[in-house]
Amino acid sequence: MTAATPNAATVTRSEVEDFLFLESSLLDEWRLEEWVELFTLDCTYEAPATDAPASDPGQTWSLIHDRRTMLEQRVIRLKKPEAHAEFPHSQTSRIVGNVRILDRGPDAVSVSASFLVSRMKAGKFDQYAGHYYYDLVQGEDGFKIRRKKAVLAHDRLAPQGKISFVL
Amino acid sequence: MTAATPNAATVTRSEVEDFLFLESSLLDEWRLEEWVELFTLDCTYEAPATDAPASDPGQTWSLIHDRRTMLEQRVIRLKKPEAHAEFPHSQTSRIVGNVRILDRGPDAVSVSASFLVSRMKAGKFDQYAGHYYYDLVQGEDGFKIRRKKAVLAHDRLAPQGKISFVL
Amino acid sequence: MTAATPNAATVTRSEVEDFLFLESSLLDEWRLEEWVELFTLDCTYEAPATDAPASDPGQTWSLIHDRRTMLEQRVIRLKKPEAHAEFPHSQTSRIVGNVRILDRGPDAVSVSASFLVSRMKAGKFDQYAGHYYYDLVQGEDGFKIRRKKAVLAHDRLAPQGKISFVL
Repeated sequence: MTAATPNAATVTRSEVEDFLFLESSLLDEWRLEEWVELFTLDCTYEAPATDAPASDPGQTWSLIHDRRTMLEQRVIRLKKPEAHAEFPHSQTSRIVGNVRILDRGPDAVSVSASFLVSRMKAGKFDQYAGHYYYDLVQGEDGFKIRRKKAVLAHDRLAPQGKISFVL
Repeated sequence: MTAATPNAATVTRSEVEDFLFLESSLLDEWRLEEWVELFTLDCTYEAPATDAPASDPGQTWSLIHDRRTMLEQRVIRLKKPEAHAEFPHSQTSRIVGNVRILDRGPDAVSVSASFLVSRMKAGKFDQYAGHYYYDLVQGEDGFKIRRKKAVLAHDRLAPQGKISFVL
Repeated sequence: MTAATPNAATVTRSEVEDFLFLESSLLDEWRLEEWVELFTLDCTYEAPATDAPASDPGQTWSLIHDRRTMLEQRVIRLKKPEAHAEFPHSQTSRIVGNVRILDRGPDAVSVSASFLVSRMKAGKFDQYAGHYYYDLVQGEDGFKIRRKKAVLAHDRLAPQGKISFVL
């Protein structure tokens, strides 16, 4: 399903969607090692604190603010049986919609999308809704994620509680 | 992101989606003045009473039944600090999906879509689901909305309560 | 809205989406007799038990495991006034997203998608989230469904309870 190398100037929404739907399926299937490989080595992955979505991640507390190494460690941790919160894994179904190409640089496209993650764990059904912001660059075969920012449309995490999976 | 002037006979679902996703982003970002500008001067915007979605809006009570001027007043009201129900603004994430072109007239296309608005306000997470029906006409640069009808798939508003934002 | 006969080797995601959105609209509008006509005569329609989504439907209990005749009977039953659970019909709004073409055979395409069914009945708002898996073949005018599998991302049905409609 990998697209040919996309060109930032001509990439279509449909190509971006193909990539984001692939990413979602890796997350829904807990194929997190493959998911990490979608990111560039200089990537950032960020989920801002829900009460300050526009704040500078270097200055304020973020829910998540990972560079590549931290992202790999997060994945190792989530796949460990000792990660009690996620063993057995929760079942999730992600919908990524409203995909928009916001900007096209020489080698990257900026993209926004809406997401809704439905999650069932031990009989408890939770949902996480918000917006994604991506910078996608052209890798050798298809896109790579240079930046992913997941902004929850929640002003606090209750009633859904702590996030123990990847948005 | 504005498409070239679309032609009702040849417009694609993808072009319609680009427009509807733009509309959603304006609503999610509370850019309501810009949102109103997406409508034609002779527009209607309608959200029927949830227990009578097919009834004639002139004959029965509607949740909302606005012409352009009323729509502008609604926006002014929603942006006022005195609009207690929406200050601070609720955070929303809209997903508009299942977009279908139902009919093509000489100057307009009729479109249906499914929507799900996730809304968090003061720790309370609500969702509003239903169907949109649009008549879109060709403006000078891209589409304009001549008619928008938002039909909630709710037979009453409880447990989500009163709607104090735009569907 | 019926597409020309698609060719499994060249069918696009967009053509598949057109078909799945048509299917969704028939379900949301309770046009179940027309919905059944979307299936081939040798079809299977399956919703595995939510605690064993990967198990062999012939060997274990499934929520649903219908061949064409059983599917027709299910529809007749759901449309009967005596089907108390669904009279009056619940109101639903389906979003089918993240559509992916997984495989292309000589005469069929395998497709996955995420779904979210929002359902309101007697003031109770429930949601059903999960993944669809389809085998679509080329009918005389457009696609037919040879296989549909709806896997709920729920490890048990509570709190949503018994399913009395079609996923």
